[in-house]
Amino acid sequence: MRIFDEMESEVRGYIRSFPVVFDVARGSEMFDEHGNRYIDFFAGAGVLNYGHNNPRFSEAMIAYLERGGIVHGLDKATVAKRAFLTKFRDTILEPRNLNYKVQFTGPTGTNAVETALKLARMLKRRSNIIAFTNGYHGLTLGSLAVTGNYYYKDESYGSRSNSAFMPFDGFLGEGVDSVDYMRRFLEDGSSGIDLPAAVIVETVQGEGGVNVASIEWLQKLAGLCREFDILLIIDDIQVGNGRTGTFFSFERAGIQPDMVTLSKSIGGGLPMALLLMRPDLDQWKPGEHTGTFRGNNLAFVAATEALGYWENDDLSGAVAHKGEIIRGELQRIADRFPELNASVRGLGMIWGLELPQPGVAGETSAEAFTRGLVIETAGADDQVLKFLPSLLIDEDVLREGLAIVEASLEALVEKRQKMLSGQ
Amino acid sequence: MRIFDEMESEVRGYIRSFPVVFDVARGSEMFDEHGNRYIDFFAGAGVLNYGHNNPRFSEAMIAYLERGGIVHGLDKATVAKRAFLTKFRDTILEPRNLNYKVQFTGPTGTNAVETALKLARMLKRRSNIIAFTNGYHGLTLGSLAVTGNYYYKDESYGSRSNSAFMPFDGFLGEGVDSVDYMRRFLEDGSSGIDLPAAVIVETVQGEGGVNVASIEWLQKLAGLCREFDILLIIDDIQVGNGRTGTFFSFERAGIQPDMVTLSKSIGGGLPMALLLMRPDLDQWKPGEHTGTFRGNNLAFVAATEALGYWENDDLSGAVAHKGEIIRGELQRIADRFPELNASVRGLGMIWGLELPQPGVAGETSAEAFTRGLVIETAGADDQVLKFLPSLLIDEDVLREGLAIVEASLEALVEKRQKMLSGQ
Amino acid sequence: MRIFDEMESEVRGYIRSFPVVFDVARGSEMFDEHGNRYIDFFAGAGVLNYGHNNPRFSEAMIAYLERGGIVHGLDKATVAKRAFLTKFRDTILEPRNLNYKVQFTGPTGTNAVETALKLARMLKRRSNIIAFTNGYHGLTLGSLAVTGNYYYKDESYGSRSNSAFMPFDGFLGEGVDSVDYMRRFLEDGSSGIDLPAAVIVETVQGEGGVNVASIEWLQKLAGLCREFDILLIIDDIQVGNGRTGTFFSFERAGIQPDMVTLSKSIGGGLPMALLLMRPDLDQWKPGEHTGTFRGNNLAFVAATEALGYWENDDLSGAVAHKGEIIRGELQRIADRFPELNASVRGLGMIWGLELPQPGVAGETSAEAFTRGLVIETAGADDQVLKFLPSLLIDEDVLREGLAIVEASLEALVEKRQKMLSGQ
Amino acid sequence: MRIFDEMESEVRGYIRSFPVVFDVARGSEMFDEHGNRYIDFFAGAGVLNYGHNNPRFSEAMIAYLERGGIVHGLDKATVAKRAFLTKFRDTILEPRNLNYKVQFTGPTGTNAVETALKLARMLKRRSNIIAFTNGYHGLTLGSLAVTGNYYYKDESYGSRSNSAFMPFDGFLGEGVDSVDYMRRFLEDGSSGIDLPAAVIVETVQGEGGVNVASIEWLQKLAGLCREFDILLIIDDIQVGNGRTGTFFSFERAGIQPDMVTLSKSIGGGLPMALLLMRPDLDQWKPGEHTGTFRGNNLAFVAATEALGYWENDDLSGAVAHKGEIIRGELQRIADRFPELNASVRGLGMIWGLELPQPGVAGETSAEAFTRGLVIETAGADDQVLKFLPSLLIDEDVLREGLAIVEASLEALVEKRQKMLSGQ
Repeated sequence: MRIFDEMESEVRGYIRSFPVVFDVARGSEMFDEHGNRYIDFFAGAGVLNYGHNNPRFSEAMIAYLERGGIVHGLDKATVAKRAFLTKFRDTILEPRNLNYKVQFTGPTGTNAVETALKLARMLKRRSNIIAFTNGYHGLTLGSLAVTGNYYYKDESYGSRSNSAFMPFDGFLGEGVDSVDYMRRFLEDGSSGIDLPAAVIVETVQGEGGVNVASIEWLQKLAGLCREFDILLIIDDIQVGNGRTGTFFSFERAGIQPDMVTLSKSIGGGLPMALLLMRPDLDQWKPGEHTGTFRGNNLAFVAATEALGYWENDDLSGAVAHKGEIIRGELQRIADRFPELNASVRGLGMIWGLELPQPGVAGETSAEAFTRGLVIETAGADDQVLKFLPSLLIDEDVLREGLAIVEASLEALVEKRQKMLSGQ
Repeated sequence: MRIFDEMESEVRGYIRSFPVVFDVARGSEMFDEHGNRYIDFFAGAGVLNYGHNNPRFSEAMIAYLERGGIVHGLDKATVAKRAFLTKFRDTILEPRNLNYKVQFTGPTGTNAVETALKLARMLKRRSNIIAFTNGYHGLTLGSLAVTGNYYYKDESYGSRSNSAFMPFDGFLGEGVDSVDYMRRFLEDGSSGIDLPAAVIVETVQGEGGVNVASIEWLQKLAGLCREFDILLIIDDIQVGNGRTGTFFSFERAGIQPDMVTLSKSIGGGLPMALLLMRPDLDQWKPGEHTGTFRGNNLAFVAATEALGYWENDDLSGAVAHKGEIIRGELQRIADRFPELNASVRGLGMIWGLELPQPGVAGETSAEAFTRGLVIETAGADDQVLKFLPSLLIDEDVLREGLAIVEASLEALVEKRQKMLSGQ
Repeated sequence: MRIFDEMESEVRGYIRSFPVVFDVARGSEMFDEHGNRYIDFFAGAGVLNYGHNNPRFSEAMIAYLERGGIVHGLDKATVAKRAFLTKFRDTILEPRNLNYKVQFTGPTGTNAVETALKLARMLKRRSNIIAFTNGYHGLTLGSLAVTGNYYYKDESYGSRSNSAFMPFDGFLGEGVDSVDYMRRFLEDGSSGIDLPAAVIVETVQGEGGVNVASIEWLQKLAGLCREFDILLIIDDIQVGNGRTGTFFSFERAGIQPDMVTLSKSIGGGLPMALLLMRPDLDQWKPGEHTGTFRGNNLAFVAATEALGYWENDDLSGAVAHKGEIIRGELQRIADRFPELNASVRGLGMIWGLELPQPGVAGETSAEAFTRGLVIETAGADDQVLKFLPSLLIDEDVLREGLAIVEASLEALVEKRQKMLSGQ
Repeated sequence: MRIFDEMESEVRGYIRSFPVVFDVARGSEMFDEHGNRYIDFFAGAGVLNYGHNNPRFSEAMIAYLERGGIVHGLDKATVAKRAFLTKFRDTILEPRNLNYKVQFTGPTGTNAVETALKLARMLKRRSNIIAFTNGYHGLTLGSLAVTGNYYYKDESYGSRSNSAFMPFDGFLGEGVDSVDYMRRFLEDGSSGIDLPAAVIVETVQGEGGVNVASIEWLQKLAGLCREFDILLIIDDIQVGNGRTGTFFSFERAGIQPDMVTLSKSIGGGLPMALLLMRPDLDQWKPGEHTGTFRGNNLAFVAATEALGYWENDDLSGAVAHKGEIIRGELQRIADRFPELNASVRGLGMIWGLELPQPGVAGETSAEAFTRGLVIETAGADDQVLKFLPSLLIDEDVLREGLAIVEASLEALVEKRQKMLSGQ
C-alpha cells in the first residue's frame, strides 16, 4: 500500500474505508491480492449493475480487441457505435414508446449533466435551474451548482450561480407536499425564484441517502414543469440502467422527461455517458459541445452487450424478487435491534438502512468489511447504510451479504452494551 | 449511416468531415467497413500518440480481462493502479527529478482542469485565474471560463466569471513580449486584473492553431508566477505524452510547473486523466473532489504499457527525426505554392500549415480525405491544417500522408486556376 | 408635459399614474401647477413620514444655507454631521439600549444595502445571503440579487448569484411556519442552501404588498440566525423611521439585529442613507467602501430636526391612533363591498387593502386620483391598495382621503354593475 | 471630534487626512469650527465645480423652500424638474447638436453606471462589458465589476463577472497603442474577450491618477466600438460638468457616445445623477429601473442655476486660462525640485503632479493642510497630487494655493536634506 500513500493525493477516499489492494473480481465478488474474498454491495457506486467483469462483456471486448476494432473514435461513425445505437433504439426506446435523440457527451456523468444544463439554458434563454435538496449531479462547476452537498463546495471556486434548491419529496416532513411549495414560488413573480430553464432531479436520490420520490410526487412535478414551460431533466446516472426494476427509473411514474442523463452502468463498467433529449430540443450546432473521449468504442461494445439483458423482462423480474428479499431482511434486522431505531427505505435494488445514531452506519460498514463485505454509507450525515448490489447477484450471495450486515450490527450492539454495563 | 442521422444529436462533428463508418484500426491506419484504408494524421485529437490499437496495449488489456482483473474500482487500491503509479514514478518522475503527487480525477481532460482550478483557488483563497488567448481547456463550466473560443460559450450558460485572458506568445505580433504586458497588469493594483490564484497555459496551443510558446516566453512566465506567488498550471493534455519530443512539453523550457494536467494519450487510447501537483499543494480532504470513473483499471493497464516507451530515449529521438521530416516537407510544399501564402509552424510532431485564404485549409482536408488521409483543421478561423500523427508512425506512411497533402493542394490550386481562367 | 415625453426616458413611471405637474407641497397636500390640491397617501414611497416640506426642516435648511453652512462634505467632519450623530445617539440609540456604529453610505437605500451585504460577506467569509419572497432591497446588482421581483431582472445583467430565497411569514399560507422550513434547509448540509453570511429581511414588506411578519416569526428568525452564526440584517429603509409606530420597525419584536439599513425618511425628505452595525462588526479599513454623496450636510440638518420628533412618545401615540382609524375604516369599507372580497392588513401607518380581482386596485387608484388623492398599488400583481400617509397627517385630512377611497370603490362597483346589467 | 470616533464607522477616510470639524464654506474656501480658513483644491472630489455654497444656487434653493416648492417627488412631473429638463436641452444639448434622452437614476454616480450597464446588456443581449485599467466607476456590485482598484474588492463579495479590462491610453508605455491591442482581442473569436455589449471609459481618469486619454485614442476607440457594434459609454461623472473646459469631457475629441453618465457637479452640490442615452436606445419599460431619490427637486433647482454658467463661453475661457496657470506653475515647481523627479499632466482644471518617490505626495498633502490647503492624492500608489479646484476659483486664491504646495514641497525637501545630512 505504500506507493498509494507516497504517490496518490490525499483526496483518495474509498481506499481508506476498504484498505486492501484489490486484484480480480467477478460478478458480486472481489478478491484482494492475497486472495481474500469480499462480497460487493456497493457495485462501483452504480457502475456495476451487471456485476464486475461480466463475462459476456469481457468476451465481447476481447473479441473486439483481437480483431482490431477501432478503440478511440472521437465522434466519428464506427461499426461499434452503430451497433450500440441500433440496439439502444430497438431494445430500450422503441418498446417504451420513447423518442429521444442521443448525444455522446464525454464519458463521465458530470459531462452529461453539464451538457443537459447548457442545452436547456440555450433553448429557453433563461439561466436559472431548479435542483433539489440532497441532489447529487457531479462536481465540475456547472454540475456543482445543482449539487446540494456543501462538502464539495468552496467559496473561492464559485459554485452558487443560477440555481435554486427546492425541497425533495419528504424533505419537509411527512404530509408536506413539496411540489405545492415549489408551485407557490413559481406562481409568484416576486418570489425570488425566477422561472427556470429546467428542473433537474433524481427519482431516487442515491448519494443523498436513498430518498425515494413517490410516483405521485414525480407526476405532479412533471405536470408543474409542463404547466410553466420548464424542461424536466431526469438524472438517471445512478438509478437508471435497471436499478429500480425498469430500465429508466422514471418508468414507474409513467412520465416522459424532456432530457435524461445516463452514465455509470450504461457502459458495462467502462466510462460512458449519454444525454437523451426530445428530438425537437436537439438544436445544437455541429461541434458546439464536445469532448475527446465521447467515442469510447470499447465501452460501446460492452454497452451493446449490456442492453441484451433488456430483451425480455427477466431482469426486471429478478430485481423485483431480490429487492423484496433485501427489503424483507432489512426490515427483520431493523425489528430485531429496536435500540437502533433503524428504518428501511428503497426501491428495486437500491435500499437504505437508516441508523440515526451518530457513527453507527460507519462502524457497521467497517465491521462488515472485516467480515468480507463491501458496503458504503450515504446521506448528509453518513447515517444511511446503502445497499447497492449488482442486479445479477446470486440469491445466496445476497443472503450471505445480508447475514454479514446482521452479524456486524449484532457485534456492534453487543460491544455497546458491554461498554454501557462497564465491562 | 442512416442510424446516425436518425438517432445521434446534431452536435456530431467529425462524422461530417469524415463520412464513413470506421471499423478496424492499427497504428496509423484506419479502415472503414468496406475495407478502405485511411492514414491518420489526427490521432484522435492527441489520444493516439502510440497509434490505434497498439498491440502491446491490446495484449495487456486482453490478458487482464482474461484473468479477471478488476475493471472498475472507483478510487480503491488495485494491483493495476499500483503498477501504473510505480511505473509512472520510476519511468517519468524520478528520471526528471520531478516530485509530484498524482490525483486521478475523472477520466476526461476537463475533469482534470476543473480539479486543478478548484485546488488552486482553495489554496490561494483567490478566485481569479489567468488564461491565454486561443487557449482550450475543456467545456464544463469551470474549464469553459478559461477557454478562449466563443463558439462554445452561451450567454445563458454563464461562462465569464473569475477569469482574465492575457495575450499568448505571439498574439500581439512579432517582437511584442506579452509577458511584459502581463507584468504591467499585475504590478498595478488598479489594473482590474486582480492577482490570480493561478495561470493556466498550454506550451503549444493545439486547438488554437498550433501556436508554439518560445522557451524564453515560458521561462519568463514561470518567473513572473513565482515572483507574484501565482500557481503555474501547465495543461499538457494535448501536447504532453511525448508529442513535443519530451514526455512533458515543458521540459524543453526547463521549468517546473506547480500543477500539470494530463489526459488524452496517458491512457493509451482509453479515457484517463491525471492531475499532478507539488506535494505541498496536496491539501485535499478525503473525498473532497471525486468522480465515478476515476479508477478505470483497463486504462491503467494500457497506460502502464504506454509508459514503457519512456524507458529509454528512442521515442524522443524518433519524434525529433520524424518532426524534422514533417517540417521539411511542409516547408517545401509551402514554397512550391507561393500563391497560397502558406506558413509552417510547430514542434516535435505537432505541426500547422497555415493557409490564410478563407476555406483553403478546410477544402484541403476534404480533398485529402477522398485520397485516404484523415487530417483536421485548427485555429480561430479553421485556417490551419494540423498535423498530429501518431508518434510511432512509420516513416513511409508519414511520407505517404504528406504526399497526399501535397497532391490535394496541387489539385486545389489547379481547380482554382481553372476557375480564374474561366474554364 | 411635453418636455417630459420629449426628453425623459420611457422608464418613467409615476408620472403616468399621476399625470399632472406638481408645484408646491405641504404636509399631506400636494398642489399641481394649476393649484389643484391632492391629498398624499403615498408619502414619497416612505420618504415623507414627516410630511412634504416640513416647516421645521425647511426653516433649519434655510438658516443653514443662509449662514453658509457647508453643504457638501464627503466624509469630512462637519458641525452638521456632528449634530446629527449626537442627536441620533441621544434620542434614538441610547434610550433603546442599542449600541451601533453608524456608516454613512451613499445616500440611497441600495447603497446602504450593498454596504451591509459586502461587510457581512467579508466578515463571515461566506458569500451566500438568504433573502425572502417578495422582499425588495434595491436595484443595483448586489441588492438586486436579494430582491424578489422578476420585473427588475434581466438575463444579461446577471442578478442570480450567491443568494437564496426563503418563504416570508405567511407566504406558504396560514399555519405554515416558514422559519421551521428554513431551519430544515440550514440543518442539512446537503440541502443546497449553503450556510449564509447573513439574512436580510424587512419586518413589513412594503413593495411586496404590505406583508406583516408576526412578532413570533421575527423572534424565531432572530433565534435561528444566532444559533447558526448568521448575521441578521433588518432592512428598515421603508418601514423604519416610525412607520410602524416605533422608530425602528423591529422594536415590537424585542430583537436586536446585527445590522440595520436606514434611508428614505431618515433625511427628512433629502437623500440620505445609513448602515448601523454592531461595533464589533465594524472592521472596515479606511476608505474601503465609499461614495461621493455620503456627506450630504443639508440632509443632516433636516435629519437632525426630524429626530426631534422622537424626544417623546407623542409620535408613537399618534401613529397608533391614526393607524387604528385607517384599520377601522378599511375594514368597514371592505365589509361594505363584499363583492370585492377585499381584505385588510397592516401595522402602524402602513396598510394594505387587498382587492384580489384583477385590475381593481389599479382602477381604484386612478379613480381616486381624479378625486384628488394620490395612492399607489403594491404586491406582485399590483393587487394591493397601499396606504402610506405621512405620520403627521391631520386626522380630518386622513378621513377625507379614506372617504375618497370609499367613493372611488363605490363608483367602481356601480360601473361594474351597470356593465353587468347591460346598461 | 470624539463623537466621530465613538459613533462613526472605521471606514471613514478624509476625516483622517483633514482632521478638523468644518463649519461653513464659500466658493473655494472652507472654515473649521474655530474659524480657520482652508483653500479647497479638492472640490468635493468633483462635486463642487461651481464652488462651495454657490450663492446663486443657495438663493434659488432658499427661494424654492420658502415658497413651498415640492422637495421630494419620486419620478412625478414637477415644475422644478421641467425647468431643469428645458434648460438642459436648451443650454447643453441643442447647442452641441446632441440628441439624448435623460434618465434620472438614483442620485449617486454608481446608480447611473449600474443603469447604463443594465441597459447596454439588455439591448445587446450580451453580458460582457469592457472597462479600462485604473478606471473607477463606483462600488455597488455592478459598478465594482468595472472598477479597476483591488482595494475595493473582496473575494466573498463577488465582483469579477462579465467584465474584461483593457489597457487605458498610455498604460503599456509610450508608443504602445492600446486600442490596437484591444482590436486584436476583438478580431479573434478565440481571444477569450467575448464581444462586449459596451465599453465604459473615462476620458480623463481622476481616481486613477489624472490619466488623460489623447484625442486620437478616444477617436480610435469610438471607431472601434462602431465597427464592432459595441455601445460606447462615457463615464463623465468626475470630469464632465466643465472640468476639462467643455461641458462634456468628450467634446474635445468630437465623438458622440451612445450613453453618458453624469453626476457630481450636475446637482450644484446636492446628490443628483443622470444617464443620457441615444433616443433609440431608450427601450425601458415603465418602472423597470427605479430608485427612491431619483426626483430630488432641490437638486433640480440648484442644477438649473448651474446650467446658467453654460449660456455663454465665459466659463470655458476661464477654465482654459486658469488651467494654463496651474500647468505653468506646476511645471515650474517640478523644475525647481529636480530631485523629486516630478512630472505634470492634466487638462482643463484637473491636474496631477506625479511625485514618484513613495510617500512624498501624501506628505505634501499633509504638510499643505497645516498651511491651510485641502488637496488629495490619487493613483494606484497614491503617488499623484491631484489638483481639482473649483472652476470658479479666484485667480489669486488659486495662486495662493499653488504657493502653499510649493512651500510644502520646499519644506519637505529641506527636511529630507537635513535627514540625509544627519542633522
